[in-house]
Amino acid sequence: MANDEVILLDFWASMFGMRLRIALAEKEIKYEYKEEEGLITNKSSLLLEMNPIHKKVPVLIHNGKPICESIIGVEYIEEVWKDKAPLLPSDPYERAQARFWADYIDKKLYVSSRKIWGTKGEEQEAGKKDFIEVLKVLEGELGEKPYFGGDNFGFVDIALIGFYSWFYAYETYGNFSTEAECPKFVAWAKRCMQRDSVAKSLPDQHKVFEFIQMLRQKFGIE
Amino acid sequence: MANDEVILLDFWASMFGMRLRIALAEKEIKYEYKEEEGLITNKSSLLLEMNPIHKKVPVLIHNGKPICESIIGVEYIEEVWKDKAPLLPSDPYERAQARFWADYIDKKLYVSSRKIWGTKGEEQEAGKKDFIEVLKVLEGELGEKPYFGGDNFGFVDIALIGFYSWFYAYETYGNFSTEAECPKFVAWAKRCMQRDSVAKSLPDQHKVFEFIQMLRQKFGIE
Repeated sequence: MANDEVILLDFWASMFGMRLRIALAEKEIKYEYKEEEGLITNKSSLLLEMNPIHKKVPVLIHNGKPICESIIGVEYIEEVWKDKAPLLPSDPYERAQARFWADYIDKKLYVSSRKIWGTKGEEQEAGKKDFIEVLKVLEGELGEKPYFGGDNFGFVDIALIGFYSWFYAYETYGNFSTEAECPKFVAWAKRCMQRDSVAKSLPDQHKVFEFIQMLRQKFGIE
Repeated sequence: MANDEVILLDFWASMFGMRLRIALAEKEIKYEYKEEEGLITNKSSLLLEMNPIHKKVPVLIHNGKPICESIIGVEYIEEVWKDKAPLLPSDPYERAQARFWADYIDKKLYVSSRKIWGTKGEEQEAGKKDFIEVLKVLEGELGEKPYFGGDNFGFVDIALIGFYSWFYAYETYGNFSTEAECPKFVAWAKRCMQRDSVAKSLPDQHKVFEFIQMLRQKFGIE
């Protein structure tokens, strides 16, 4: 697949885009990164053409064909470039478990995290409570393992670690300490950050915080 | 896998449970069907033990191990019993497309359908409008093909057809005709209903309607 054209249509602060950046890095796939500059204000014609249904980043474009929804993109990368750095286990039950936890993150973590920085008062407090509960459930699933899948970095780690770049903002606006609430989660996140594929795919937490400050002003939350 | 123990913990009216019933029937897998009688009022200890995170049916239990979330269960069935009746295509891009549309159904169809029978007034009208729009998008994706994947019944058909058993209720409470709005969708649904695996997995539309009448009374919507 030396002549493959791989493009990632992404936005730097997207924790969903980070999943694809990490998966591509783990598989050592060369690709062109295209920043969707106008995501908030003016979506590009390329984005509207490649993801007409959801109109969201990230979109992985492989030889001109779009793959939308980040978890589906990670599975696609796993299936196409299957010989290098397996991201999913081979056992069907373990694969189902990995998919379950990635789905749990999609269903529960984003919604509650969004409330911490995007709302005020009671709604914000409820979001923070839910968010910490979800983290504790995830921490319970991690247990004493170094990574969610066991000894090797994989699918669930990829699904989750991008959120970590938003944690300074969550902690600041939610007024809590993840270290105090979920120390094993933080240890896991720091372990992941030691990997090149993760470190180079996640933006600085303070840069994300500044971006969220801007969003809060824009949406009239401040 | 002659000695496999397969149990489906389900509720008769669940369109998500129907997915697993159909996939198991397509693969000709013998299983024990366990009705979660008290789903609405009093969840069983087996359900709480097998799905402690979401506490929802369906749960597929294979040799004592639970697989939760219906689409993940269908993929599991496909991977374990891979030699018979393939449900997903073999090409990674086509697999990603099938997963995209199953995910679209999960994200968009249930939420809007729920509003048609579970709300009143403006919220109900908005739900109905969204629901018909989602159906039209799905109809567009189907195009002139007999099934979503092409000539063969498969993953997206399995993800979607269970909803059809609720259509008499949607049409009655929403006061619309699917046949008039989306004739190709109805032709596709009738085509699916001709399959044994589907016909024996879906309840009668009038029985579902009576169940929803009961729910509406219980929730004080009538």
